[in-house]
Amino acid sequence: MKRIGYVLTAVISLTGAGAYISLVPAHADGAATPVFDVNQMPAGYRDWKVVSVAHEAGNLSDLRAVLGNDIAIKAYREGKLPFPDGAIIARLAWKYVPSEENNKVFGREQSFVAGDATNVQFMVKDSKKYAATGGWGFAQFNDGKPVDAAGLGGCFACHVPVKDRDYLFTRYAP
Amino acid sequence: MKRIGYVLTAVISLTGAGAYISLVPAHADGAATPVFDVNQMPAGYRDWKVVSVAHEAGNLSDLRAVLGNDIAIKAYREGKLPFPDGAIIARLAWKYVPSEENNKVFGREQSFVAGDATNVQFMVKDSKKYAATGGWGFAQFNDGKPVDAAGLGGCFACHVPVKDRDYLFTRYAP
Repeated sequence: MKRIGYVLTAVISLTGAGAYISLVPAHADGAATPVFDVNQMPAGYRDWKVVSVAHEAGNLSDLRAVLGNDIAIKAYREGKLPFPDGAIIARLAWKYVPSEENNKVFGREQSFVAGDATNVQFMVKDSKKYAATGGWGFAQFNDGKPVDAAGLGGCFACHVPVKDRDYLFTRYAP
Repeated sequence: MKRIGYVLTAVISLTGAGAYISLVPAHADGAATPVFDVNQMPAGYRDWKVVSVAHEAGNLSDLRAVLGNDIAIKAYREGKLPFPDGAIIARLAWKYVPSEENNKVFGREQSFVAGDATNVQFMVKDSKKYAATGGWGFAQFNDGKPVDAAGLGGCFACHVPVKDRDYLFTRYAP
């Protein structure tokens, strides 16, 4: 069994929005290991610009906002593919809740609003570090705590069908 | 019949996000007339921060993002009521469209995304100018063109039920 150590690295966001810390696993033999290592939420992500919004029905039953840091928003607006290193996409989600208050005003059951936050996901572009997964590192935070690597195993596979859009499901909303 | 002239005024956004121009109707006798006079979309609104997201079913059938300029976001985050002058809320909306692409990956019909933009609405806080309507001026733009005052007649009445939240339906999403 290989011994795996962790090297603490600080990745400074190029957008000035903030910095985040990641733990990069490094094999004792120095070989690169593509794992998802975003262990803190990028600072300031709640202030990022909107890429688009969505609703997932079924088990997820949420309303979501997809935000991007400045590098990601620029790439989206310019239609630039693949996204450059430093781009980060944030997917916020909240419980899908009918609004009694709004419905009363509308006079019918039609309004659904954001309830409690569910989890926050990130895609971080680093074409070298995450070369094995299309250049994207994947992360999810539940109540602010990172989901460990085992819980992120399915992320990339799910994004492969949209490989021609640099693995991004979300399109920019005008 | 009173003669009404228009005075061109430039309102500079305090957020630095940009400026917008409004046409303020002025009676020949100088009396204030509370009308909604936001005739250009506030510059940079698409870059504002997210207040929340929502889905309106029924006839509207849209997905929406409610954004705020810096003054509005600060007031939301601090729970400050009433909102200070200069606060602007933007409500963007897009057609509610099932995503075949996403559903294929999920293996079921559950994903709804933002299609074409429908219209953009604004609430602009100016406690003096819009004193008759809770301090808020209302505006809507269809394809970038302002809806005239007659089309905005119902806006305020609809917001009266949430007077205790300074006439704002949307709550800040954490």
